[in-house]
Amino acid sequence: MPNQKPALKIALIGHGFMGAAHSQGWRVAPRFFDLPFQPEMTLLVGRNAAGVDAAAEKWGWSETSTDWRTAIEREDIDVVDIVTPGNSHAEIAIAALAAGKHVLCEKPLANTLEEAEAMAAAARNADKGVQAMVGFTYRRVPAATFARDLVASGAIGQVRQVRAAYLQDWLHDDRSPLTWRLQKEHAGTGALGDIGAHAVDLSQFITGQRVVGVSGLLQTFVDERPLLDAPTQLGPVSVDDAAAFTARFDGGIVGTFEATRMATGRKNSLRIEVSGSKGAISFDLENYNSLGYYDATATATRQGFTQIMVTEPEHPYVSAWWPTGHTLGYEHGFVHQAKDFIDAIGAGQQPEPSFDDGHQVQCVLDAVQRSAASNSTWTTTA
Amino acid sequence: MPNQKPALKIALIGHGFMGAAHSQGWRVAPRFFDLPFQPEMTLLVGRNAAGVDAAAEKWGWSETSTDWRTAIEREDIDVVDIVTPGNSHAEIAIAALAAGKHVLCEKPLANTLEEAEAMAAAARNADKGVQAMVGFTYRRVPAATFARDLVASGAIGQVRQVRAAYLQDWLHDDRSPLTWRLQKEHAGTGALGDIGAHAVDLSQFITGQRVVGVSGLLQTFVDERPLLDAPTQLGPVSVDDAAAFTARFDGGIVGTFEATRMATGRKNSLRIEVSGSKGAISFDLENYNSLGYYDATATATRQGFTQIMVTEPEHPYVSAWWPTGHTLGYEHGFVHQAKDFIDAIGAGQQPEPSFDDGHQVQCVLDAVQRSAASNSTWTTTA
Amino acid sequence: MPNQKPALKIALIGHGFMGAAHSQGWRVAPRFFDLPFQPEMTLLVGRNAAGVDAAAEKWGWSETSTDWRTAIEREDIDVVDIVTPGNSHAEIAIAALAAGKHVLCEKPLANTLEEAEAMAAAARNADKGVQAMVGFTYRRVPAATFARDLVASGAIGQVRQVRAAYLQDWLHDDRSPLTWRLQKEHAGTGALGDIGAHAVDLSQFITGQRVVGVSGLLQTFVDERPLLDAPTQLGPVSVDDAAAFTARFDGGIVGTFEATRMATGRKNSLRIEVSGSKGAISFDLENYNSLGYYDATATATRQGFTQIMVTEPEHPYVSAWWPTGHTLGYEHGFVHQAKDFIDAIGAGQQPEPSFDDGHQVQCVLDAVQRSAASNSTWTTTA
Amino acid sequence: MPNQKPALKIALIGHGFMGAAHSQGWRVAPRFFDLPFQPEMTLLVGRNAAGVDAAAEKWGWSETSTDWRTAIEREDIDVVDIVTPGNSHAEIAIAALAAGKHVLCEKPLANTLEEAEAMAAAARNADKGVQAMVGFTYRRVPAATFARDLVASGAIGQVRQVRAAYLQDWLHDDRSPLTWRLQKEHAGTGALGDIGAHAVDLSQFITGQRVVGVSGLLQTFVDERPLLDAPTQLGPVSVDDAAAFTARFDGGIVGTFEATRMATGRKNSLRIEVSGSKGAISFDLENYNSLGYYDATATATRQGFTQIMVTEPEHPYVSAWWPTGHTLGYEHGFVHQAKDFIDAIGAGQQPEPSFDDGHQVQCVLDAVQRSAASNSTWTTTA
Repeated sequence: MPNQKPALKIALIGHGFMGAAHSQGWRVAPRFFDLPFQPEMTLLVGRNAAGVDAAAEKWGWSETSTDWRTAIEREDIDVVDIVTPGNSHAEIAIAALAAGKHVLCEKPLANTLEEAEAMAAAARNADKGVQAMVGFTYRRVPAATFARDLVASGAIGQVRQVRAAYLQDWLHDDRSPLTWRLQKEHAGTGALGDIGAHAVDLSQFITGQRVVGVSGLLQTFVDERPLLDAPTQLGPVSVDDAAAFTARFDGGIVGTFEATRMATGRKNSLRIEVSGSKGAISFDLENYNSLGYYDATATATRQGFTQIMVTEPEHPYVSAWWPTGHTLGYEHGFVHQAKDFIDAIGAGQQPEPSFDDGHQVQCVLDAVQRSAASNSTWTTTA
Repeated sequence: MPNQKPALKIALIGHGFMGAAHSQGWRVAPRFFDLPFQPEMTLLVGRNAAGVDAAAEKWGWSETSTDWRTAIEREDIDVVDIVTPGNSHAEIAIAALAAGKHVLCEKPLANTLEEAEAMAAAARNADKGVQAMVGFTYRRVPAATFARDLVASGAIGQVRQVRAAYLQDWLHDDRSPLTWRLQKEHAGTGALGDIGAHAVDLSQFITGQRVVGVSGLLQTFVDERPLLDAPTQLGPVSVDDAAAFTARFDGGIVGTFEATRMATGRKNSLRIEVSGSKGAISFDLENYNSLGYYDATATATRQGFTQIMVTEPEHPYVSAWWPTGHTLGYEHGFVHQAKDFIDAIGAGQQPEPSFDDGHQVQCVLDAVQRSAASNSTWTTTA
Repeated sequence: MPNQKPALKIALIGHGFMGAAHSQGWRVAPRFFDLPFQPEMTLLVGRNAAGVDAAAEKWGWSETSTDWRTAIEREDIDVVDIVTPGNSHAEIAIAALAAGKHVLCEKPLANTLEEAEAMAAAARNADKGVQAMVGFTYRRVPAATFARDLVASGAIGQVRQVRAAYLQDWLHDDRSPLTWRLQKEHAGTGALGDIGAHAVDLSQFITGQRVVGVSGLLQTFVDERPLLDAPTQLGPVSVDDAAAFTARFDGGIVGTFEATRMATGRKNSLRIEVSGSKGAISFDLENYNSLGYYDATATATRQGFTQIMVTEPEHPYVSAWWPTGHTLGYEHGFVHQAKDFIDAIGAGQQPEPSFDDGHQVQCVLDAVQRSAASNSTWTTTA
Repeated sequence: MPNQKPALKIALIGHGFMGAAHSQGWRVAPRFFDLPFQPEMTLLVGRNAAGVDAAAEKWGWSETSTDWRTAIEREDIDVVDIVTPGNSHAEIAIAALAAGKHVLCEKPLANTLEEAEAMAAAARNADKGVQAMVGFTYRRVPAATFARDLVASGAIGQVRQVRAAYLQDWLHDDRSPLTWRLQKEHAGTGALGDIGAHAVDLSQFITGQRVVGVSGLLQTFVDERPLLDAPTQLGPVSVDDAAAFTARFDGGIVGTFEATRMATGRKNSLRIEVSGSKGAISFDLENYNSLGYYDATATATRQGFTQIMVTEPEHPYVSAWWPTGHTLGYEHGFVHQAKDFIDAIGAGQQPEPSFDDGHQVQCVLDAVQRSAASNSTWTTTA
């Protein structure tokens, strides 16, 4: 059954864990959603020829290259999807946009504010109809999208407080090795940029407000770890194991944030609770299909957090999937991301979150770092 | 990147909701697991030409047919995957096995015990290397598979009790229409066969014991419902809304079972708790990625149900997927089913659950019906 | 500050664990509730003089006796509170009622149906104003009382199903000794009467319907246990470790019941879920201050079980206690029981549950035993 | 049964909600615990004669006074228990200690640091054997005490992070009136001192470390509220609705703290999670009888938070109460407080928490205020 829709040829740059997730997004989205284009998994790019060939065969990409410029130069490629480490994002994305390719770029947008600014400018200055989006996929977890809808509908009244935390524990053991993620020159920051970025983006997405000032603290608990290639020697950890900050949003919200890789027992717990004058919502990524909702206007004796199973056809994205009560998981955010990006391309509209949005999140993280370096003194994000 | 593995050509008979789930299984399994064959989604069969063509295009099947016999007759088809209503299973499966095709058949194996017996015989008598499997996919939820492993390892000692319930609520509203699922001539039974079958299979799978006797009760709460094509008229409901039974297993377990479509607020809650002399396990399908485990041999002050997030690489199926703490969902059971079936074909081994297993589950359900028709008197499954 | 209220002199017969709980009820009730009488802890009765003296000093009873007849004979005693083993209930209660004493009697009302009938008759025939009540205290857990109120208000529509279980695990270890509770001659039944009785009473209380027929099964998993006074020898267990039964109520409810002391990891889990045409409620005694409530008439996207913290002043009994969110525990049911009993005496009204209610619960348990002895055949409670 | 133990005569100063809780503590403690003295509820003091008489009758105090000096002057009074507003604590406590009375003083120790210092000095300088204790009762919730024991035993290794929050919502409605608790002159601070103090004390108690520096933020969301006696007029709120701060402890812990009365839907949620190198513990006061414990040294597949029901006889305080699985509630902390205080008096040992401990907590809160007034700049508690 040849598909009748126009093709949208994708090139994916990078083939780590995120490459698997993005591949699944492109592969599955057209099988459940009615899209304006048929995405084709055309080109997979990686620096190691054997590795990229193996990944392409496993994931179903038609061709491979060891040079990302191939993707830019090929006229048939419509979309460049970037999942490389952060320090290469700017160069690839800016070149791709200049070549008229749509760009999907994993978060963080870049490792430096300057690069992020340049990328946002490139996106703004791209040809009309050329779209750029940054990959904060957790916005597309149905429970999170529905939380945004609830807040926007006024269901919890005026929002006053956000408590957000992204808790993982994969560094709790001192003997975990010194990977590139623990070295400032490669990773920029530690928990702050890696997972704190998600907490900031999701909080802003759900509340519709933006962080304008912070007071922050960064902490490295284990400052030396075994070298990857010489485990009997130790090398210095140069990024944060944990970050904590308070924040004020432009609409008056006060927020508390924590990002840590040392929260023993918490595997992937991105928690956001939003308290408003008429209610509250509560979300935890480990409980993917569920959203807590408190209605302070209900009969006094019947108030409490309602644990909504976000699997009804009326919930965001859900009608394309399974019957009520049948759950989704981590990768579905990537399918929804592919869908939303293709839809935006088809509609000629700016997809969200934009490169400007990605840049703004990094301004917040940068303010946290500056505050932490200044005795936690209050620091604006401007 | 042309795949180097030998192809395994699949024909899928049926294209309802289960067709979408099975399609996702065949599509995704080779992208995450290393399989002996490359499954190809070759032929989709459905009685309505327009419908089957649309489904094939959406799901990615290469060809279509309106006659399931095409799948049998085509020599290139290796696997016949049956997701039609239960009353057509026997004819298709027996023909496919006789033609040397591997067969995957959705549960229930058949609508009558006689048909189920014939299918089991056909599977036993099939040519060596021709495999048949019935689709109790919930065995392949990682938490359920791991529960089986825990019990088999002796972690909870001698098993004494099972409390199993499959709770849904989609019929709680009197105004829900009289679909074929509510008519005995099409569906055989109601909640008993549709979801009670899963509770029986999963309990037996996890404990390694089989039900040998039951005392049952069936109940229809709403005995007339609006006709589908004439909603102002009511027609008779001829199957059970709810079933409840006690059971004894061959190894001495006492079990309680409930299957209902009237458990208001419960969407897809398949719950199994297994109590043993040294511990217990507790599972709820609505909490897909989690398993409760109680170790009665731990220090007295530290005992309690441990809520294990079944997302570690050491857990069944998980290493193929995402990092620790990143969740799976409903459809992954179908991916694991495709993987396990292809692996069994490659190894020339009987996949589980076999048609004999499917037949045995139906013997249990039949005993429940017979008991319910005889004042709940104790009834053996033989 | 001498209390101005008329005194109500209590005699407590028995001083085991239940004696401590009842003592706390009498002691505390007047300190939080405005009662028509001031209860006075006048006389504690026990067969062992030293034991009863020690208990009286510890718990604050003014006098002691080793003969329960003292309580009957003393004219100043107003209330006889019976917490002895079940086989002595009838004699004491009937004598007390004949002497014009109000009687509070622990459940089970008696060990035999005949005794229970005689007690119920004695209560009916007592002098006007002489009250008798049986101690199903769990009715007085605020969440349970509120569940009853919700159902009675129509909040969940027509009730269709009850799933009730009382799960404990104190017998899961084979080496637990052979106490009197495991011997039929002393205890009558095992889990069935001890805790199953609570499940039956609470289900009936919450739904307002009564069980009229059952199909039951009893099981003893460990049939020999160490003798208390000679632990190297084993003696026979003559009561059930676990009971399971299905039931029909007089208003059409279908129920499933389980009572077990072998549910490893469950310490005191009395769970009741009630499913109705418009909603559901869910309760677990281990989560004492909370009630789950599902409203099937809410907006589709906002439905889910609301976990109500039953600590608002508008909830039953709560306004006498602490501010919102401050929890109560096990013993508060006994305080509420004392309050309700004293209130009923003051008002000259029959307190609930009456001896007739206690007798009816035992009719249900008797029907379960008869059914279990007859291949689980359906058995009416009449 | 006259009690043979020497009497300990108590005077309670104040009769608000805390008076009821302390009365219950003195009343019940000797009924469940074996104490060196028999506490006698001798004197209740309150400024309003009618009010104090009514309270004394209801709660069972023998005598009343409208002047707290009576309690100091009476030679027979052994213990002065202070539950008045914070601004009167210092004068009463210092006078009582000087008169050789044991003093139990509700938290906060005082409204100003100077008063708290003077009280701590008075306690240190009191006659040998005269004991002073401050009322952080949540230390005596069995789950919290057990959490301290677990951490002290090394069960979670080296502690690295604490996340503590005390969430209430009774001010979420703008129309809540302007009580004295919302006025700085009477209450000192808002959520910070009222409930944040508990979060600080409990975190320090469980971890055995003390906060040495903070960065804080205070926020008043509703700055005008209806006057109590003229609800159509608004008056200014002069304390914080919410406080948030990061902290460092003397042993290297990094902590995040929040105290708020605006967390819609959270009624009395004091949550503390402690992450260590080998495990973690998690507590929520709304789930009073339960403690989460994570053992990072367990078999990889079996790790998870174990929800321990802290109702075993081996758990702190529990053996005096009910069988396994039977729950305690809010007031039991006050019973345990009375027990521990009487035990310390009997043993001639300093009870914990001491007035020095109370003073130290207020130093932390003071540092939060100073930081909040200085752009959240890092501030030491010295």
